[in-house]
Amino acid sequence: MSKKVAVIMGSNSDFPVVKSAIAELKKYSVEYECRVMSAHRTPEEACGFARNAKENGFGVIICAAGMAAHLAGVIAGHTTLPVIAIPMKSAVLEGMDALLSSVMMPPGVPVATVGINGAKNAGILAVQMLAISDEELAQKLADEKIKMAEGVRQKDIELQEELKNV
Amino acid sequence: MSKKVAVIMGSNSDFPVVKSAIAELKKYSVEYECRVMSAHRTPEEACGFARNAKENGFGVIICAAGMAAHLAGVIAGHTTLPVIAIPMKSAVLEGMDALLSSVMMPPGVPVATVGINGAKNAGILAVQMLAISDEELAQKLADEKIKMAEGVRQKDIELQEELKNV
Amino acid sequence: MSKKVAVIMGSNSDFPVVKSAIAELKKYSVEYECRVMSAHRTPEEACGFARNAKENGFGVIICAAGMAAHLAGVIAGHTTLPVIAIPMKSAVLEGMDALLSSVMMPPGVPVATVGINGAKNAGILAVQMLAISDEELAQKLADEKIKMAEGVRQKDIELQEELKNV
Amino acid sequence: MSKKVAVIMGSNSDFPVVKSAIAELKKYSVEYECRVMSAHRTPEEACGFARNAKENGFGVIICAAGMAAHLAGVIAGHTTLPVIAIPMKSAVLEGMDALLSSVMMPPGVPVATVGINGAKNAGILAVQMLAISDEELAQKLADEKIKMAEGVRQKDIELQEELKNV
Amino acid sequence: MSKKVAVIMGSNSDFPVVKSAIAELKKYSVEYECRVMSAHRTPEEACGFARNAKENGFGVIICAAGMAAHLAGVIAGHTTLPVIAIPMKSAVLEGMDALLSSVMMPPGVPVATVGINGAKNAGILAVQMLAISDEELAQKLADEKIKMAEGVRQKDIELQEELKNV
Amino acid sequence: MSKKVAVIMGSNSDFPVVKSAIAELKKYSVEYECRVMSAHRTPEEACGFARNAKENGFGVIICAAGMAAHLAGVIAGHTTLPVIAIPMKSAVLEGMDALLSSVMMPPGVPVATVGINGAKNAGILAVQMLAISDEELAQKLADEKIKMAEGVRQKDIELQEELKNV
Amino acid sequence: MSKKVAVIMGSNSDFPVVKSAIAELKKYSVEYECRVMSAHRTPEEACGFARNAKENGFGVIICAAGMAAHLAGVIAGHTTLPVIAIPMKSAVLEGMDALLSSVMMPPGVPVATVGINGAKNAGILAVQMLAISDEELAQKLADEKIKMAEGVRQKDIELQEELKNV
Amino acid sequence: MSKKVAVIMGSNSDFPVVKSAIAELKKYSVEYECRVMSAHRTPEEACGFARNAKENGFGVIICAAGMAAHLAGVIAGHTTLPVIAIPMKSAVLEGMDALLSSVMMPPGVPVATVGINGAKNAGILAVQMLAISDEELAQKLADEKIKMAEGVRQKDIELQEELKNV
Repeated sequence: MSKKVAVIMGSNSDFPVVKSAIAELKKYSVEYECRVMSAHRTPEEACGFARNAKENGFGVIICAAGMAAHLAGVIAGHTTLPVIAIPMKSAVLEGMDALLSSVMMPPGVPVATVGINGAKNAGILAVQMLAISDEELAQKLADEKIKMAEGVRQKDIELQEELKNV
Repeated sequence: MSKKVAVIMGSNSDFPVVKSAIAELKKYSVEYECRVMSAHRTPEEACGFARNAKENGFGVIICAAGMAAHLAGVIAGHTTLPVIAIPMKSAVLEGMDALLSSVMMPPGVPVATVGINGAKNAGILAVQMLAISDEELAQKLADEKIKMAEGVRQKDIELQEELKNV
Repeated sequence: MSKKVAVIMGSNSDFPVVKSAIAELKKYSVEYECRVMSAHRTPEEACGFARNAKENGFGVIICAAGMAAHLAGVIAGHTTLPVIAIPMKSAVLEGMDALLSSVMMPPGVPVATVGINGAKNAGILAVQMLAISDEELAQKLADEKIKMAEGVRQKDIELQEELKNV
Repeated sequence: MSKKVAVIMGSNSDFPVVKSAIAELKKYSVEYECRVMSAHRTPEEACGFARNAKENGFGVIICAAGMAAHLAGVIAGHTTLPVIAIPMKSAVLEGMDALLSSVMMPPGVPVATVGINGAKNAGILAVQMLAISDEELAQKLADEKIKMAEGVRQKDIELQEELKNV
Repeated sequence: MSKKVAVIMGSNSDFPVVKSAIAELKKYSVEYECRVMSAHRTPEEACGFARNAKENGFGVIICAAGMAAHLAGVIAGHTTLPVIAIPMKSAVLEGMDALLSSVMMPPGVPVATVGINGAKNAGILAVQMLAISDEELAQKLADEKIKMAEGVRQKDIELQEELKNV
Repeated sequence: MSKKVAVIMGSNSDFPVVKSAIAELKKYSVEYECRVMSAHRTPEEACGFARNAKENGFGVIICAAGMAAHLAGVIAGHTTLPVIAIPMKSAVLEGMDALLSSVMMPPGVPVATVGINGAKNAGILAVQMLAISDEELAQKLADEKIKMAEGVRQKDIELQEELKNV
Repeated sequence: MSKKVAVIMGSNSDFPVVKSAIAELKKYSVEYECRVMSAHRTPEEACGFARNAKENGFGVIICAAGMAAHLAGVIAGHTTLPVIAIPMKSAVLEGMDALLSSVMMPPGVPVATVGINGAKNAGILAVQMLAISDEELAQKLADEKIKMAEGVRQKDIELQEELKNV
Repeated sequence: MSKKVAVIMGSNSDFPVVKSAIAELKKYSVEYECRVMSAHRTPEEACGFARNAKENGFGVIICAAGMAAHLAGVIAGHTTLPVIAIPMKSAVLEGMDALLSSVMMPPGVPVATVGINGAKNAGILAVQMLAISDEELAQKLADEKIKMAEGVRQKDIELQEELKNV
């Protein structure tokens, strides 16, 4: 049976962005659990969750946090599961603080970082990781890639119409 | 049988950094293939490699590139395997160019980015991905995590000695 | 007969900016084709287009993309035509990501980068390239340069009026 | 009796910089403990240390870490003592990563951040905090401030000599 | 009797942000004085205030300023009390100017810098400093930390409800 | 007969980098003229050169300058020829100042900017521009592109040897 | 008789900001001339203006420009009068491009740069320069400095009222 | 009689750079005084110097400081003389901290900022300011401008020789 994906956010204000990750997991029928846990405000829960994640059937942990985004790094310190960081843009600095806080991890404790506010990609990346050993998921990913290309081609066709009026 | 890891670099000048990724793969006895292929100079090879990687038994692709680092993104455009980017520091801009060129991928095509010159972490992250479905690898990762902690504790003991002479 | 200019954008959401490039091409009666093609989502189309662009009568290719903007670089990898990049500002980082992803190309594969969202300049630059061997176009460019200067002078006159009320 | 100061570094490679903080503590005869503990590699020790620091007689905790510097933030999550961060410059990005990772803490969990590699200032700041309720320390700080000014004045005198030869 | 906290801002336009610091001081029943004083426009007042702050019963000085934020540094030059800087975001540069102007102090004159617009954390940090020698305050901080965690847990519960409708 | 390429540098200290551009022009047997002219120190020469460049048989102007690199922009203000900027890295800021000063041109006056210190690419880009209407040059560019790919393939073969000893 | 101040802007869209400079000049009854002239679009006018500025009775030239702001540098290349740059914030990059393009001038051609959008300060700085040899102006500056301080003190008094309601 | 120029540096370690400013002042036979005074370590001296500078015959004050460079701003707060800042590059951040700390002054207190480590330009700028009302100095500036251009032309001639051997 396939592993679950955990989606943790440092604050529920991140949810409007984070739900794009969940949408991907649902699209691929990957089981997930979504939690609010803070590296700084509920560190015990966060660390405890990380320590038990593998045993509890998780295969990947997605962490979304802004500013001095420590959530992914802290989680990664307590698990050997791959951890994906979504650096969140917050009120200042355009998300650069969260990006550097997530990606520049010291040797030995990697965090797989996606783009600022890149929740959708975090979801897909989690599915890609699970799909390494799940041929059905891999096939769905391939199908979606084709659909995505089809979407771009459709946009190209629409653009040709639009150009007639330029 | 376990999947292989591909380690691709845009230029062989990246090898002194990239070999830390290979060292990790060897440590975990993960089979790998290491190649020089350029997104800009040998795009056919790079794209072809990506398209066939899954069929050829690869589970993860690590890409190292500097400057306007397109390698990971281009590879990710041609495969559904998880792609890990190592943004390389080059002669100017401290690697910030490679970091942003790697991590800020558009929705639909994720790249799992590690820190600038973070080759060791790229290797470990690849192993973590394979370990989702490989209990033996997972155990080795857990063992290494314990050894790593032990190493820090040892340094702490050494520091106490050093402090006596301060 | 004069060469055509291709204007490619990674996403049709770039069109409101990109159309300033098209407006310039139309002003100079330069034939163009405008397409949505993505380096990451429809790489085959993008690469194919680039490989055949010269044969298909194109002289210059303009590429607009945001974030980890790989489009211009990927196109440049498959053609010897000059490629112009318009780095697009997107939701975060003020377009700095797209600028560095476009301009910091490795030796051997140049991309002629204009300013962030600089679509108008991309259009003019394409015309300037074609005008190297097209005296009529060159004359039109010279005429426009005079008109542009005239426009500034007119603004200066208007400002003198405005200053009376300060 | 006066509280102790803890000086924690994420890696013993930080010691050459960190020892300037210790030098200040020694100068003011403030008792200290200096440790290597990593937020990512020995998180249990780090968190445990933080949780018990107050009980163990500490009044201030100084944390030095580079890259995605999580140490100060993690420690601050487990204690109500004031935590001072020294963002360390490492091999890339000039320490900007460590600065943002240290200073941009979420509301509720402050970290008192000094400049990049600012170990000496971290030491003095810790003394200033203890001196709020320790008149003797406060007097020493005032004395040092006078000495420091005297040093600058001395340099000014020396400069006047040097200028004669310009 | 406990020491007071001074809250100084360079311009009264900073008040909407700064009042979060005051709210914390009130929550902890810490006595405070709040002033508008400018390092550049009323330097005499600012320096005079700093020189006499200790004698006037202050234990900590919080300074909020934007742009080339010199207020905290100037105050720190005239006192041995710990000085906390709140770098303010202003109309350009996202607060990066104020952050660097506040945090990068020369050796000998520390400024304890919190995040951009981090007024709430400045307030808490001031309380933490006073609490080093005030067990009652320390207990209140511990209580608030528990409440804060409880708040996150509550958000987590609410999220579970919200997820049912996703 | 083919147009010439002008290579202008703001200071002869730029020559060690700039000569890579000249090497490319020589490789393609493109006629060139190389000059030291400063936008700030010899503006008359620079502007005069630009105004007469087209008449004097130039097709493209390459400008190399560092710091507040105005040379390309100033030249572009006086000609309708395509102008290529090489932003030079100088003693501070890693070349970011020269990059922004070169690329962020106002609407109406484009500058085709290559990467920081990207002299080789500037040379190739100039050739690509000339090759729009010069089939022989275009063929040489295609030949070089093949050689360049061959070079990468050769490096890949060498790497396989090197890997045997890892 | 006192020298005039020239206020030049690259585009009349800069006027809403630039008029703060003019307001200062009027306040000090300094004669001024305000012009739209572009370094890139009307370079002849700009250079001509600069060359003749001293003869035409100007003592200082203020230049406002955004993006790759070359106006101040170009003007400074053609005059020995002190040139003040106002780097303008434009649609992207928060004005950092204009700041670096203005301030990082090569040795020999200084530009006195004020803050991004700092038009008011540019006006005052121009007056300060003229006041070096104009005792009356110097006295007015001193008076204004006192008024400015008075204004801050007044704000401080108002704040005390406001605080009663917090 | 002509006014003097003050050259103040925050630390005598700045002297190797600052002496280029002095060299300019000597070249123009402008009287100067050079001092080490710190905004943070000897604020009384610095402020006192500024307050009396005009009376003491100074016309311009040049301030060199690194990191959170407050010296120019503090001096400007206590004088109506024009103040020139030389932002110094120090061990981290490439001088960006000093640049922003110097240039982003609040409305009402301008600082005329030159480039990072731009001591030579600071010297020339000071001379330009004095020359507004000193025709002899103005003539010398014009003469030097001609010499400087001559120097560039000479370099251009030398380059032509060098090119023969390329």
